[in-house]
Amino acid sequence: MAVNLKLNPAQPVSGVALATVAAGIAADGVDDLVLIQLAQNTNCAAVFTQNAFCAAPVTICKEHLRANQGQVRALLINSGNANAGTGQPGIDMARGHCGSVANALGCQAFEVLPFSTGVIGQLLPDESMLSGIKAASACLGEHSAENPGEHLLSHWDAAARGIMTTDTQPKLTSRSCSIDGQSVTVTGMAKGAGMIQPNMATMLAYAFTDAIISSEHLQLALEQAVAVSFNAITVDSDTSTNDACVLCATGAGITLHPGHAGWDVFLHCLTTVCRDLAQAIVRDAEGASKFITVTVSGGRDISECRTVAYAVANSPLVKTAMFASDANVGRLLMAIGKADIDALDPAGVTVSLGDVCAFERGGIADGYSEEQGAAVMAQAEITVRINLGRGDAVAEIYTSDLSHEYVSINADYRS
Amino acid sequence: MAVNLKLNPAQPVSGVALATVAAGIAADGVDDLVLIQLAQNTNCAAVFTQNAFCAAPVTICKEHLRANQGQVRALLINSGNANAGTGQPGIDMARGHCGSVANALGCQAFEVLPFSTGVIGQLLPDESMLSGIKAASACLGEHSAENPGEHLLSHWDAAARGIMTTDTQPKLTSRSCSIDGQSVTVTGMAKGAGMIQPNMATMLAYAFTDAIISSEHLQLALEQAVAVSFNAITVDSDTSTNDACVLCATGAGITLHPGHAGWDVFLHCLTTVCRDLAQAIVRDAEGASKFITVTVSGGRDISECRTVAYAVANSPLVKTAMFASDANVGRLLMAIGKADIDALDPAGVTVSLGDVCAFERGGIADGYSEEQGAAVMAQAEITVRINLGRGDAVAEIYTSDLSHEYVSINADYRS
Repeated sequence: MAVNLKLNPAQPVSGVALATVAAGIAADGVDDLVLIQLAQNTNCAAVFTQNAFCAAPVTICKEHLRANQGQVRALLINSGNANAGTGQPGIDMARGHCGSVANALGCQAFEVLPFSTGVIGQLLPDESMLSGIKAASACLGEHSAENPGEHLLSHWDAAARGIMTTDTQPKLTSRSCSIDGQSVTVTGMAKGAGMIQPNMATMLAYAFTDAIISSEHLQLALEQAVAVSFNAITVDSDTSTNDACVLCATGAGITLHPGHAGWDVFLHCLTTVCRDLAQAIVRDAEGASKFITVTVSGGRDISECRTVAYAVANSPLVKTAMFASDANVGRLLMAIGKADIDALDPAGVTVSLGDVCAFERGGIADGYSEEQGAAVMAQAEITVRINLGRGDAVAEIYTSDLSHEYVSINADYRS
Repeated sequence: MAVNLKLNPAQPVSGVALATVAAGIAADGVDDLVLIQLAQNTNCAAVFTQNAFCAAPVTICKEHLRANQGQVRALLINSGNANAGTGQPGIDMARGHCGSVANALGCQAFEVLPFSTGVIGQLLPDESMLSGIKAASACLGEHSAENPGEHLLSHWDAAARGIMTTDTQPKLTSRSCSIDGQSVTVTGMAKGAGMIQPNMATMLAYAFTDAIISSEHLQLALEQAVAVSFNAITVDSDTSTNDACVLCATGAGITLHPGHAGWDVFLHCLTTVCRDLAQAIVRDAEGASKFITVTVSGGRDISECRTVAYAVANSPLVKTAMFASDANVGRLLMAIGKADIDALDPAGVTVSLGDVCAFERGGIADGYSEEQGAAVMAQAEITVRINLGRGDAVAEIYTSDLSHEYVSINADYRS
């Protein structure tokens, strides 16, 4: 059951056509194949997983982005199978599926980016993919003057559902801003609920804007937004083989670049969409009953703040205490202390649960009571504030608790 | 329920007297205070947790070992309360308890080493400790010519039980060797079931030998033995604030030093005791239903082998798959790949479940079937063999699975 997962309503983006079908890749006949067609002259930027065993589609995406210089005409996404750990046959298959999409849409194979998510180490069912691509390319729904509004949203919503695996809810949202009197929209969707600690990348996430932005500037914007959104979450410390985040500018609107007065407004808009989606992933994390923000301030640099925040956010003992609503300050100290920060002085560290200071000057804070801690822990949203007392750097990480349901979901995943 | 936890029977060590009492520190009136008196001229070596928030007794132990140069007369161990995160009051209390032991036994306070394990962040009940020390010092049972054998073993067994927290079984074992026709005994006990990823140290563990060995040489032997035993296990990646491992040589037997022909025999004996106890901790890990050995070979150095082995052993997704007896090779690949090893070539990596090769040359191994994997995973003891294919280094790590019971135990720990 997701924790307070409410996203800003989505708006279609001009230049994006979507189709979602049940191709028979995932079990139970659910929608599992999404085809997204992009207008001519759409520019794309992307970041990918740093996992050494990156999946075949990640390899093909990188190869195609080098060939097309960010000029992309279609995204093909399947759930139910990650096409990872599948060797040359997996690579050949991903390349073949791009060729099929290119044939159907009248573009080059290298203008198609493939993405997969699901079980690792099994070959994709090739025929299901090929017939799914054929079916999807026949039912693309596009935003246009003749076809605006509500009807189109169902295509976006279906796509956000079609990329889900253990997610319980689709993650789709938009933000708009006005630059030089023109509206700029950023709409994004993401999937992911487990195997989540993105490393310079993310789970599958796709963002689209109608602005005109070069690939190079898109890459710059994407990396800035990802650093404080998808790269600031963890469910279980595990980095997927298939993480990818793509930002597409369809070029239907205003021209933007870093020197433009509206660039920061756009960047804020993009970052908000990415952060909302990243937090939505954590709110819908496998088995989550709590949404936990770990804020570490007073560090010498952001890196040490992030190290401490991840040590706390990934500690199974902290996560089980969160699940139990147990104000177990001792486990927080343990996790901070194991983070291996050079010459950390425990006497300078302050730990607060919400706004209640629980630990300072090397011991339990004066006046702190278990009742105060318990009141904070009883909430579904908990902020742990840690001040390292030795600098000005700050980092914030979002995470979930470790529950029986997490174990059940992951013990039963392939059965 | 512990996984195949069977240890070699224990033998008393001359020069060690033990007493175990219920002092009222832990709940439910269980034995929670152990006092161990050591013969005059006993030499001690110790290693401690690297956690920055190390507990008050760890601080006092280090202070006393500097003062006594390894000449130790008593160990005082309480369970039920870690005396960690307790600031100056915790330090003062630990120092006071050493004074009480010194008064009772007629030695100096700095010849006493204190140890605590249990809940972090709460002050010890001082009066319970003081009356417990008084009671324990009145009932010390010592090995002697008049008092040999079976009767004494009950004192050792009671002590091994008295230091337990969430352990379901005591961990006490011995190994003997013969050097120059004289018998040398090493007897060790350990506790620990959660918050286990020792970092250059271990959970609480105590080993005793009747040989005559200098503190300096004991330290050398201890560090070598700990590297492949207590420093090669993980239950949940969490490093305790109270980890300590102590080795005492009571000097009742033969004189040993690194140049001696029997040194390697002694070292093997000590390492076996440490490895058996370390593995016993994992076999009795919180909620464990599997005992898992992760062997990583073919690395450029031991460090990268250990990094990969810990990435696999600590992955919640690998651990839940183990719990489910699911031959999920994909999750093993994910965990290897996230370990951030410089320029790892997936095509050179081989992964085997037991003796069944499951992954090689970048894809699922020829002839590998799910049935073969499932047969290995159905066992209570599973070995995962990973060959990185780029060197000769090897490392081995022992771990447990992640079960519903782990969540239950740690969600309920303080309630």
